[in-house]
Amino acid sequence: MEEFKDDNLIDELNGSLARGDNSASAKVLSGLHAFEVARILTGFDDEGQVLEIFRYFESEFASDVLLELDDRIREAIVSALHSEELIDVVEEMETDDAADFISDLHPEDARQVLDGIEAEDAAEVQKLLAYPEDTAGGKMQAELVSVREVVTAAEAIDELRRKGKEIDSISNVFVVDANNKFVGVVPLDRLILAEPSSRIGEIAESNPVYVQTSLDQEEVAKIFRAHDLLSIPVVDSEGRLVGRITIDDVVDVIEEEIFEDFYKMAGVNKEERVHDPARRSLWMRVPWLFVNLITAFMAASVIKFFEDSIEQLVLLAVLMPIVAGLGGNAGTQTITVMVRGLALGELKYVSTKKVLFKEASVGLFNGLLLGAGATVIAFLLGAPPMVGVLLFIAMILTLMIAGLSGALIPLVLRWLKIDPAISSSIFVTACTDIGGFISFLGIATVFIKVGLI
Amino acid sequence: MEEFKDDNLIDELNGSLARGDNSASAKVLSGLHAFEVARILTGFDDEGQVLEIFRYFESEFASDVLLELDDRIREAIVSALHSEELIDVVEEMETDDAADFISDLHPEDARQVLDGIEAEDAAEVQKLLAYPEDTAGGKMQAELVSVREVVTAAEAIDELRRKGKEIDSISNVFVVDANNKFVGVVPLDRLILAEPSSRIGEIAESNPVYVQTSLDQEEVAKIFRAHDLLSIPVVDSEGRLVGRITIDDVVDVIEEEIFEDFYKMAGVNKEERVHDPARRSLWMRVPWLFVNLITAFMAASVIKFFEDSIEQLVLLAVLMPIVAGLGGNAGTQTITVMVRGLALGELKYVSTKKVLFKEASVGLFNGLLLGAGATVIAFLLGAPPMVGVLLFIAMILTLMIAGLSGALIPLVLRWLKIDPAISSSIFVTACTDIGGFISFLGIATVFIKVGLI
Repeated sequence: MEEFKDDNLIDELNGSLARGDNSASAKVLSGLHAFEVARILTGFDDEGQVLEIFRYFESEFASDVLLELDDRIREAIVSALHSEELIDVVEEMETDDAADFISDLHPEDARQVLDGIEAEDAAEVQKLLAYPEDTAGGKMQAELVSVREVVTAAEAIDELRRKGKEIDSISNVFVVDANNKFVGVVPLDRLILAEPSSRIGEIAESNPVYVQTSLDQEEVAKIFRAHDLLSIPVVDSEGRLVGRITIDDVVDVIEEEIFEDFYKMAGVNKEERVHDPARRSLWMRVPWLFVNLITAFMAASVIKFFEDSIEQLVLLAVLMPIVAGLGGNAGTQTITVMVRGLALGELKYVSTKKVLFKEASVGLFNGLLLGAGATVIAFLLGAPPMVGVLLFIAMILTLMIAGLSGALIPLVLRWLKIDPAISSSIFVTACTDIGGFISFLGIATVFIKVGLI
Repeated sequence: MEEFKDDNLIDELNGSLARGDNSASAKVLSGLHAFEVARILTGFDDEGQVLEIFRYFESEFASDVLLELDDRIREAIVSALHSEELIDVVEEMETDDAADFISDLHPEDARQVLDGIEAEDAAEVQKLLAYPEDTAGGKMQAELVSVREVVTAAEAIDELRRKGKEIDSISNVFVVDANNKFVGVVPLDRLILAEPSSRIGEIAESNPVYVQTSLDQEEVAKIFRAHDLLSIPVVDSEGRLVGRITIDDVVDVIEEEIFEDFYKMAGVNKEERVHDPARRSLWMRVPWLFVNLITAFMAASVIKFFEDSIEQLVLLAVLMPIVAGLGGNAGTQTITVMVRGLALGELKYVSTKKVLFKEASVGLFNGLLLGAGATVIAFLLGAPPMVGVLLFIAMILTLMIAGLSGALIPLVLRWLKIDPAISSSIFVTACTDIGGFISFLGIATVFIKVGLI
């Protein structure tokens, strides 16, 4: 089993690390998968040591590890490598990975690497570099097996024999016409099952799914998911076959996009990782907290407005954070559900009015239940009965505001063509704080004026 | 392109829906992918109409749609179908889907369906029903192509021809010994590239990855990701090959697990969807809000303790939510990063001490920056200078508490073997509220006692 194997190796690794034997450490690591090695190296404090170990790796393994590393460590390694070393690792990459990798290099390094790798690969990579990284064109690789529709299954298998050795994870043969226009797909199992003499055009899937180079990667991921695909052909604006995207690249996109949404919701930069140094995390988090500082002072100015009422009844200051706090958490529940709905496209077929009505109703009933709970607890703790009534009414209003703002803020952001997830947490808590303080202190002031409390 | 096709069909669909022509609506929907149809049907208010449209679908399509529907609508449809209709759709499913589906039926319905489907399928399904749904055993399907290691490549292709027609998305042939013990994998492309007379045992991948039936589905997903697999063989405790898991099932697991983590973090039930009726959402959200009500009263009792100070200086009541609110949002940033780190296993190689030290440092510097900001704003708004100093110190302490509690709460929950994501939002805001009020009002009380404010 995976896990046991790892544990033994980790013990060995700790031994060689303790001895400071980087060559031995590199050898142990080479027995693990690149993905795991990237995670292990990321935990190291000493970037110099990471670099030394890295230099002991075979270039194919080094290339795999480099692609799995986080941007921060990758950049540290890359900036320390000589251009010959860079060329060695890029030579091992598939064209899509090479293009992504080269696009992150300094222009000078990029040029040297492109000059250094095989001319044919360099030409492919340069074509890919023209596409934005988060589109189908940016995600695709040029490596694929394609045949004309007029060839036979046996001839297609021969073509596969010729080209297949250099290409990883082939699951389909793509079919094109005389102008290289994409016309169909033959899954490998279907190719094997076919009569050797049958024409490829006849065994190809009718109505195959494909995407254009310009399609956003998130849409590409949705199509993969919808059709349970292993790979998808990519065509240019003229319908010519230019590449394919394989599912392993899409799994990363799916994972990345979901994390990004929730990161944005909390006001966290999508690049931040748990092992980033404090300095980096600080600069990524502090901007949104400054936005929050402004909204917090707005909420405070509401309280300031009702200062006289608090002066008359300090109990108001004691209870007001209960109302605002519950509003904040209820609002967070709503936006969490909304962000998921927007991410998966579930909101496409549900009307905005219906969602708002639903969230207002949930807020109302949440308010009735929690308001009743709060009133009972306050009464048991000795608060005057009319303060309980105040708490009850304010809780209902605030939880309705929480539901409505939790649903509206992502929708309004989307309508403004801003990412609906972006810092919605901070905006929703601003609404629930301000709304909560106005409801609670406003009604309290009326109650005081009419002599109820 | 996908999107255009959909838009036309959606117009047609709206037409037939407006005319109340369920047969025509079903026909239009049959032109879309089951995944899309499930999303469209989920947006319908009228479950009776969904059922009528559903009954017009061909059984293969009906089966695909049913599997893509959310639990709520699926249950509504299933409870209305007769057992013959259920048998028809289950007959179309792969064994893993059939097992999941049947395990959700009422025992009486489940028995009728198992009696109704083909005996061979029923036997396979019953074997799968024995495994918990969220393990490798529960995710695997029995459909696979396996050959003995002694056969030739040509014989393996013959076997593939025999069995391949009934099985979807074959990407590997599995190799077993005389006792059906799993020994290796031959990817289809390698099988095609091999000499027809070469022995399978020789072309199989050495050191193939496999999992045991009992492995948790989240671990299975990690292994798929680490090794960029398309399918993985599943073995029983004796090492016998019993099934395979394909990547399309794993993509769902990956997506589901990430959403679940963030749902839990916000105190949202993992089953909740944006289009759920208000009543259902209410009962799913209100329990955690009651937990929050308790923590809110705990925070309020801290304020109550410092009532005298607020009575002397009402400005304290105005400013205290700023400190607590910023703490809450900073704490949410930290747990968001932590939840990701725990989900991806990134924390495995970073020491707890390092994470805590980092978050405390980020909190300290966040506090210095935001504290300075808050002091300046308060001063500009006319607060006494010493109140600014108070705000500055309280902000530093609270943001350090935010960082530490944001990091500690998920770690402690994990250590207690509770899901580290579970409602961590509510617990962290409880810590930051209580910590924020104690710091701010505590120091304020000292300042008042010594006559600074």
